[in-house]
Amino acid sequence: LRKKIAVLGATGLVGQQFAWMLADHPYFEIEALAASDRSAGKRYGARLEHVVGGTVPGKLREFVVESIDPKSLAKRGVEIAFSALPSETAGSIETELANLGIAVFTNASAHRMDPDVPVIIPEANAEHIALVDSQRKRRPGFIVADSNCSVSGLVIALKPLMQFGLKDVTITTYQAVSGAGYPGEASLDVIGNIIPFIENEEGKVEKETRRILGTLSKGRIRDASFDINATCARVPVHYGHLESVVAELETCPDPREIVQTLRKFRGVPQKLLLPTAPLEPLIVKDDEYRPQPLLDSCAGTPERAAGMSVTVGRIAKKGRKLRFILLVHNTIRGAAGTSILNAELALKQKYL
Amino acid sequence: LRKKIAVLGATGLVGQQFAWMLADHPYFEIEALAASDRSAGKRYGARLEHVVGGTVPGKLREFVVESIDPKSLAKRGVEIAFSALPSETAGSIETELANLGIAVFTNASAHRMDPDVPVIIPEANAEHIALVDSQRKRRPGFIVADSNCSVSGLVIALKPLMQFGLKDVTITTYQAVSGAGYPGEASLDVIGNIIPFIENEEGKVEKETRRILGTLSKGRIRDASFDINATCARVPVHYGHLESVVAELETCPDPREIVQTLRKFRGVPQKLLLPTAPLEPLIVKDDEYRPQPLLDSCAGTPERAAGMSVTVGRIAKKGRKLRFILLVHNTIRGAAGTSILNAELALKQKYL
Amino acid sequence: LRKKIAVLGATGLVGQQFAWMLADHPYFEIEALAASDRSAGKRYGARLEHVVGGTVPGKLREFVVESIDPKSLAKRGVEIAFSALPSETAGSIETELANLGIAVFTNASAHRMDPDVPVIIPEANAEHIALVDSQRKRRPGFIVADSNCSVSGLVIALKPLMQFGLKDVTITTYQAVSGAGYPGEASLDVIGNIIPFIENEEGKVEKETRRILGTLSKGRIRDASFDINATCARVPVHYGHLESVVAELETCPDPREIVQTLRKFRGVPQKLLLPTAPLEPLIVKDDEYRPQPLLDSCAGTPERAAGMSVTVGRIAKKGRKLRFILLVHNTIRGAAGTSILNAELALKQKYL
Amino acid sequence: LRKKIAVLGATGLVGQQFAWMLADHPYFEIEALAASDRSAGKRYGARLEHVVGGTVPGKLREFVVESIDPKSLAKRGVEIAFSALPSETAGSIETELANLGIAVFTNASAHRMDPDVPVIIPEANAEHIALVDSQRKRRPGFIVADSNCSVSGLVIALKPLMQFGLKDVTITTYQAVSGAGYPGEASLDVIGNIIPFIENEEGKVEKETRRILGTLSKGRIRDASFDINATCARVPVHYGHLESVVAELETCPDPREIVQTLRKFRGVPQKLLLPTAPLEPLIVKDDEYRPQPLLDSCAGTPERAAGMSVTVGRIAKKGRKLRFILLVHNTIRGAAGTSILNAELALKQKYL
Repeated sequence: LRKKIAVLGATGLVGQQFAWMLADHPYFEIEALAASDRSAGKRYGARLEHVVGGTVPGKLREFVVESIDPKSLAKRGVEIAFSALPSETAGSIETELANLGIAVFTNASAHRMDPDVPVIIPEANAEHIALVDSQRKRRPGFIVADSNCSVSGLVIALKPLMQFGLKDVTITTYQAVSGAGYPGEASLDVIGNIIPFIENEEGKVEKETRRILGTLSKGRIRDASFDINATCARVPVHYGHLESVVAELETCPDPREIVQTLRKFRGVPQKLLLPTAPLEPLIVKDDEYRPQPLLDSCAGTPERAAGMSVTVGRIAKKGRKLRFILLVHNTIRGAAGTSILNAELALKQKYL
Repeated sequence: LRKKIAVLGATGLVGQQFAWMLADHPYFEIEALAASDRSAGKRYGARLEHVVGGTVPGKLREFVVESIDPKSLAKRGVEIAFSALPSETAGSIETELANLGIAVFTNASAHRMDPDVPVIIPEANAEHIALVDSQRKRRPGFIVADSNCSVSGLVIALKPLMQFGLKDVTITTYQAVSGAGYPGEASLDVIGNIIPFIENEEGKVEKETRRILGTLSKGRIRDASFDINATCARVPVHYGHLESVVAELETCPDPREIVQTLRKFRGVPQKLLLPTAPLEPLIVKDDEYRPQPLLDSCAGTPERAAGMSVTVGRIAKKGRKLRFILLVHNTIRGAAGTSILNAELALKQKYL
Repeated sequence: LRKKIAVLGATGLVGQQFAWMLADHPYFEIEALAASDRSAGKRYGARLEHVVGGTVPGKLREFVVESIDPKSLAKRGVEIAFSALPSETAGSIETELANLGIAVFTNASAHRMDPDVPVIIPEANAEHIALVDSQRKRRPGFIVADSNCSVSGLVIALKPLMQFGLKDVTITTYQAVSGAGYPGEASLDVIGNIIPFIENEEGKVEKETRRILGTLSKGRIRDASFDINATCARVPVHYGHLESVVAELETCPDPREIVQTLRKFRGVPQKLLLPTAPLEPLIVKDDEYRPQPLLDSCAGTPERAAGMSVTVGRIAKKGRKLRFILLVHNTIRGAAGTSILNAELALKQKYL
Repeated sequence: LRKKIAVLGATGLVGQQFAWMLADHPYFEIEALAASDRSAGKRYGARLEHVVGGTVPGKLREFVVESIDPKSLAKRGVEIAFSALPSETAGSIETELANLGIAVFTNASAHRMDPDVPVIIPEANAEHIALVDSQRKRRPGFIVADSNCSVSGLVIALKPLMQFGLKDVTITTYQAVSGAGYPGEASLDVIGNIIPFIENEEGKVEKETRRILGTLSKGRIRDASFDINATCARVPVHYGHLESVVAELETCPDPREIVQTLRKFRGVPQKLLLPTAPLEPLIVKDDEYRPQPLLDSCAGTPERAAGMSVTVGRIAKKGRKLRFILLVHNTIRGAAGTSILNAELALKQKYL
């Protein structure tokens, strides 16, 4: 029997991504697509017509968008809420849902810095899910966050490098316009241009990366100790954040060994065979001209995991510094896909 | 002595264009830059920093944006208002200004279909300014409109063709994103894409073209009698509307004669040597790959008239049908520049 | 038993499209991927790495590109050649293949104006395939051409309108950069710009449209008699040619009836259930903002027919003039896909 | 009396930039515009029609492109050659010119690593011009190179930071398509995409930066000793390379002091009042959303120096690491403009 779920903020870009990936899921069944009062009452398909590419799955087309009403959701047996709410409203609604006994898997940043809310990219820190036990002491439900979209790709690539003694990370991003939601950046600003600033982004990248790669002990996360410097910019690309990384390691192996290490890397989702887990969390390209957002953003097999693999290329070494490029699909691995993976993890590990 | 003017809606794209072109004008002196209450009280330069390219002229940088207060403007001796107001608010404000004795030159469409408000592209229908006399019978000031941005280029190109008996016009446009104002189209919709619809645009193109090329007699405009079909689309271009035109003529001369006719064409602004009038209203390109928005939008000499010429190319004939491409700068000739030219015309012809 | 086929010009954009669509085809089996001597001897997959999006099907990756050698192909039992050769070389090679008894389905324009070579878009003129019989009198094999990419979409949309007495067509295009092949247009020319000319394109559109919609009698094609004016421009879009059409009809029904007519339209490929035939040759959109290249180019079901449907929108009527927008995938329906459909047709109708 | 100069490789993008900037120069007079045999004999203006924006200065339009003939240039009294030749041909031609007594100011990389050829960005290392004396011992003329385009902006920004003990630089670039010349990158690769690799670029950036900021003593350059890591990518922008820089300093002052240091910085060109020298080599923006290629690439006053200033923004400090963004116009400051400045320097300092 599949568990009843709701998507909150269902009409935004990430909400749509959630709905698509959940429309035909082996563990979950959509009970409600909820959004702001402005959208409530409209057929979901009509809302998507302009925003999302291609055609809307028939199942979704006939859904009627409802207002967000936590009590009603609980009453109807919704056990899981996937939240793509804007941060301003996410905070209190997600708390209310958790208080009502619902498990919230959220892409909003509102609770990411709560001490007992784990921020999970499960290939990197599946074990942080144990923080749920701490939350359970104070309320029947819980909140699990995914990370900032740029962070999601970065921590998967850094995780297998931690063994070489990660000391310092410099990351510079080329972020797709879809990262700003819809309508997001004005076309007049973006065509033929680069915008060298994204509000609040660099701080999130620096904080969340160290938190996710930190260690959980005695119910508390201790941040990883490496230094990190992030510079984030917007580029005229639809989907896929490209990131240039320079990592200082205590002992930096040869690039060939790094390539092997990254290619062999498997995380908890792969071991548990979670439905949305990609077979390879990291795909390493030999071609120097890759990864490219246009060609590689949707990497990942099986089909359900398209966009869940992180693509890495241009691996090079200079002294103790390792250099590489990575690409992550910002609304799949960087948002909806990871939260779905987190819910699958929680289910498999009996937190649900 | 220069006349005091105000720019209304000064913080939008067209308002900024007005301000730049008026910052150092031989006939006019900026007394007020007015906009919505939201912008009021801020330094004008700071508002422009993100929107407009390059640097803001020193003169404008220190202006403080004020709220729109028609009575205050009248009291301070403002004789002319250039309006870049959104159509929703333009209607009543412009009427109030005219009632207070101010001459309004507007880019808003609110009054374009009022029977005694002339819609003027002065190379095409300078004589319609006589409608001001009709307005003066009911109020001390008056309103003169410029046209829809696509229409401005079209009527200048069609005017010298009227002598060959214009029977039918099919126009298909490639319109720049700046035509939608700021922020306008979402970058996610526009990058690598075409949007084949612009709300209300095609109707305006069809109606205004026939009105401007119509004849004024006994205080009324009689629309020109040719048929017209317009299809309007948005393309990922910053500035410059490209238009493909097929015109059926009663007798269609050879392309070479058409080229000569267009190159020789001069209108009233050229005869009166108005400061913002381009020496050549129509620039004809021999190169088949021109005009291109990126290369030709700012055509026009002298420097003050940059962007005021319409560029034409690819002139060909098939039976009685003439085919050509034209390019018009949508915020200069298609908006602010033409309204300034209209004010210069009104002044020279003693309507001010 | 599947027939052995060769793809000529296999490394170009259209050649790649052929290879992909034929990699797993129920009627055909790839025996050879042939290209210029420059590419010969290289693994096919390596050639594709930079040009084509996504990943290369395993089957193709290991093919070794060979030089074009018609006799060797004939000796190895190749019965069909799909040609994506550049027009300069296509002429003589295709003739040689036909003389050797091979059936050539070509996207090159070299033989399109030969009197006994049919130019077929089978939803519009499947019956023209009978011209093959004329060819067979002079050689054992034959050549069947598909049309110019813009024409392919246009004739499918015009075919069901012929019954209303088509008198005149004005078509203006927004053509994707992939239409120029690879590398094609320089990015410096195309970013944020429109190029209002494509060499030789307009003439092809005008001629081929009238030929395809013409009638075959006594072994000769008689062109359709309507007038046609084409203006073709290049836009910064990857795939999908958008076309704005104004068609004068003897009696123009209401838009609603037109919508019904287009939606109900089925051609020979649909009746014969050819594998690459889309269920609906014409998909009509109600949403005024559609079709858009980014969202609708790959329309078509079943999966094998993705990109084979033509999408139509914005249907409107003015007097006897009908206006609409159409979108056609230029390398699928506009090139490789249609030639494959032509081969399927020839096979089903016993020309092979 | 103005010195006679020649532009070599005059029809490429950088060659055109040279021609424009030299068309009306106080020290120099164009005697010859030379290019490959393919272009020779054609009017220069006709060559430019498609490539360069706007209109071609009348003076240049009538020039006839000539083949490159060093002896003929010497015979006609050409004293200076500005070279925009491709690296393959630049090597031997430039040597021949120097042997004939001509002073060569080149944008080609062929001789940049010759031990006695100075690579000069004069705000950073004007004193390296003394290497010309070494060259003069072996030939009557000499060669002075400008640097890689990305390097030109970087060294101007780093120069005033050297006093704080520069230890390590990480640079990540967003480079405009014009950096690849014309036709350069295919539009199909670049629209809505990032290409994370530019052949040979990163090595040049690393080597040339350390060389230019190195010290000249006893006729030899000793490279600066800081470490440097460069990652270079191509973005869909016309002009202007954006660079993200993280610099480790021995003692890193507060951002406010850094801003002051950069704003006050003046180099030799400013002290000598060279005609193409910008008043401010470094323009520091307070607005976090700047610099942007579209808005800031052409920064620089007086008018002749437009595009010669480097724009810096987003200055921040973290421990001993300083972070900032810089923007440099790649064909002006990064190529033609700097070589012209070098020639002005050589003239003022009596090397000519």
